[in-house]
Amino acid sequence: MVQTNLDPEDWEAIRLLYEEAVKDGLDYTRTIRERPVWQPTPNFMKEPEPLPVNPSPVNEVYEQFRKHILPYGVGNLHPAFWGWVHGAGNLYGVLGDICAAFMNCNVGGRDHVAVYVERQVLAWFREVFGFPASASGILTSGTSMGTLIALTVARNTQAVGNVAKDGVAEAGKGLVGYCSTETHSSVSKAFQLLGLGEHSLRQVRTNGAFELDLDAFKQTIEEDKSAGLRPFCVVANAGTVNTGAIDNIEGVAEICKQNNLWLHVDGAFGGFAILLDEYKDRLCAIQEADSVAFDFHKWLQVPYDAGCVLIKDAIAHRASFSARKDYLQGASRGLASGEPWFCEFGPELSRSFRALKVWFTIKSCGMDALKNVICRNCLQALYLARLVEEHYPTLELMAQVSLNIVCFRYVPKKGDVDFVNDFNQQIVADLHETGKAVPSTTIIGGKVAIRVALVNHRTEEADLNRLVQSVLLLGIERMGEEST
Amino acid sequence: MVQTNLDPEDWEAIRLLYEEAVKDGLDYTRTIRERPVWQPTPNFMKEPEPLPVNPSPVNEVYEQFRKHILPYGVGNLHPAFWGWVHGAGNLYGVLGDICAAFMNCNVGGRDHVAVYVERQVLAWFREVFGFPASASGILTSGTSMGTLIALTVARNTQAVGNVAKDGVAEAGKGLVGYCSTETHSSVSKAFQLLGLGEHSLRQVRTNGAFELDLDAFKQTIEEDKSAGLRPFCVVANAGTVNTGAIDNIEGVAEICKQNNLWLHVDGAFGGFAILLDEYKDRLCAIQEADSVAFDFHKWLQVPYDAGCVLIKDAIAHRASFSARKDYLQGASRGLASGEPWFCEFGPELSRSFRALKVWFTIKSCGMDALKNVICRNCLQALYLARLVEEHYPTLELMAQVSLNIVCFRYVPKKGDVDFVNDFNQQIVADLHETGKAVPSTTIIGGKVAIRVALVNHRTEEADLNRLVQSVLLLGIERMGEEST
Repeated sequence: MVQTNLDPEDWEAIRLLYEEAVKDGLDYTRTIRERPVWQPTPNFMKEPEPLPVNPSPVNEVYEQFRKHILPYGVGNLHPAFWGWVHGAGNLYGVLGDICAAFMNCNVGGRDHVAVYVERQVLAWFREVFGFPASASGILTSGTSMGTLIALTVARNTQAVGNVAKDGVAEAGKGLVGYCSTETHSSVSKAFQLLGLGEHSLRQVRTNGAFELDLDAFKQTIEEDKSAGLRPFCVVANAGTVNTGAIDNIEGVAEICKQNNLWLHVDGAFGGFAILLDEYKDRLCAIQEADSVAFDFHKWLQVPYDAGCVLIKDAIAHRASFSARKDYLQGASRGLASGEPWFCEFGPELSRSFRALKVWFTIKSCGMDALKNVICRNCLQALYLARLVEEHYPTLELMAQVSLNIVCFRYVPKKGDVDFVNDFNQQIVADLHETGKAVPSTTIIGGKVAIRVALVNHRTEEADLNRLVQSVLLLGIERMGEEST
Repeated sequence: MVQTNLDPEDWEAIRLLYEEAVKDGLDYTRTIRERPVWQPTPNFMKEPEPLPVNPSPVNEVYEQFRKHILPYGVGNLHPAFWGWVHGAGNLYGVLGDICAAFMNCNVGGRDHVAVYVERQVLAWFREVFGFPASASGILTSGTSMGTLIALTVARNTQAVGNVAKDGVAEAGKGLVGYCSTETHSSVSKAFQLLGLGEHSLRQVRTNGAFELDLDAFKQTIEEDKSAGLRPFCVVANAGTVNTGAIDNIEGVAEICKQNNLWLHVDGAFGGFAILLDEYKDRLCAIQEADSVAFDFHKWLQVPYDAGCVLIKDAIAHRASFSARKDYLQGASRGLASGEPWFCEFGPELSRSFRALKVWFTIKSCGMDALKNVICRNCLQALYLARLVEEHYPTLELMAQVSLNIVCFRYVPKKGDVDFVNDFNQQIVADLHETGKAVPSTTIIGGKVAIRVALVNHRTEEADLNRLVQSVLLLGIERMGEEST
């Protein structure tokens, strides 16, 4: 009989290949410290191949992966990776992802176990952030998508008319929102997407600690009201991406109450500092928020992608995304039951079973171990800041350490601002290209900073010592080059 | 030395557990035909557990998965699953997903191999749909997200002013779009999200074959223009979700040219019929479109989630989503290079490496084998329609088969419309609960239809024979119950 489906003809052979892949993946993870953090992708992987018409033996396809793809990833598993804010992953989460891959569930709706696992995960994190059991939520690819969902509900709820039906021009005119100038670009992207326009997002100045200036915030609201506009929401930061600054969420919540604003908290990574006694007092005001978005794939070390948004008004949340037509009707029993469906809480109808890797991670690690990672990373940030200060004035700390992010720069003995900025850019590129470490860069007060975001459970203090030594050496080498 | 990171202490033990998971997943797939298509989730999996503070041994966590999660999925791997439009997955794609899980890449941007694999996949599907090499694209969770991205670019490009900066109220007033009444709900959801409002989407009537009525379309444009509105886009269907109808894309494209409309094609599953000679003539007009969105996780059998959008005007595409702040600046070398970044082509900054499972599937299967699945499914739809017609008037075919979807119903000898509708709902729920088959339902002309969407590479004709026999038997049983 000719096999017409796509299943393998030799199941034992495919099992052996899967075992090889598992062994290679585990070896790769176990020996990660021995490898360069990053290395450039081979050029031939950049040249497109023609569309494959005929099948290739899967062992050959896998071999291409093993040789030419596996070694050339982002590098975020490595203990010396501190670029942007990438978690380092964990093998319980990877196991969950493997299990989810076999199951191949679409979690857009209906009545099957993946829906209940996702609801379990949501219940856990309502508990973490002090949200009531009646709050709704949904897992997302990350905080950008979570924030977009929250701001959609905020816009629809706060407008005078029916924005969903009649549009912003008819029903949402004059809506303005607020955030600090240090807020993540995903917020202004959401304003663009939602048809409110970037200009409707007031980016309010920060105080010396890069936190939203509450007086300026109040004043801007008053000005907007006087101009006949309709203030509707604010995004507060639980850990800014630049420096880890935490806005005064309690103070923001108070102003929201007075002005009937929707309070959304961007807790992408910093929200989880709520687990630590040192930050609990400042972050427990998240429970006052109307919505909070955060990532599992950052400080909770779940593999990419896994974010979440929680929304207190479940009815408003569902109303903003529920649009089920004839072919998506529910039933009282069978697979088509299971109300409400997740597709009613976000823009996606096709949704992966990403909840399973979160479930595996939380259960296998336990929250205490994850809390310890967060605590250790914060201590490491202080340690690194001290190291930097010990090398003043060659190294200069550029912002106070509020959480887990350290911004510093190398200050060569001569050179104008542009020269020094480029100098630090080059040092970071050198670190990448030598495979020694991956910090990223940002700009603080017009100056390029080397930015170290500590969200890595594999990092040890010795890695930070080596980073500082490498920066110093690269600086000296570069100065030597400049002098010759 | 105390281990502080989250890596396993016993690497050999974790390897054995991973091997067990692989064996279980493969056994589950190999024996899928012996299982019920669907079975209800055990009740205790629906009751939330408290947040785990302490770790659980990963073997115990896995055991809970194996016993209480794995058997209770959606069921779409099963040959008798034809509900909604779910692909059945394939083991080369699962292998790709496993490899991606280990790598844990964020494909939001930067210079690493995952970016190049995604670009490779995009190049292949530009070729499939006849889009030029200059077209941009991005992988998404599915067509809903792909369509949202395309319509964002359409809105921003077609508005007179700068919608992204000034919002719809200032710069996008009067924009109206078009689609047929048979169009997927994701399109009206996109209009809601984009601030255009659902009312700005004109749902134009269809002809007898459920295709967009071109005369009505032209007339609606004229009426809108006369009313001072600004027609800006149309969504054409390459396979509607209800019946698989294919709009006259060539005719729609012609009207778009005359009226300067953006043409977006929803090719979620049906777009891939372009691979077949029988449909090529009708679908090659997709190359005239400004954008097309489609899913890999449907007819191409890639595991969830994997969709895509291609957009001809790469500059407009990038301009609609590019908002990189200081901490997201690129560099000329090192990991921060690799321009342009994928986060500039969609709303997400965190993005999974879903391209790898597509890459594994396409290379290992080859397009010819995938084409054969599509061809066989279309023939199976005709076969099922014939079977249904052989049992007329007990079974009634409710729409002509245009592609791979068969809508029919059981017509009991007595009972009004509501009775018959409920009767068919109950038959479908019975099929689910007995685990025999999973069709879904839809409504055609006010009548509930049993809807069989054939996008399953494991389905054989005998499965369709069994479906018809089961429906007939359940109908007779139910009529018996009703008479007693």
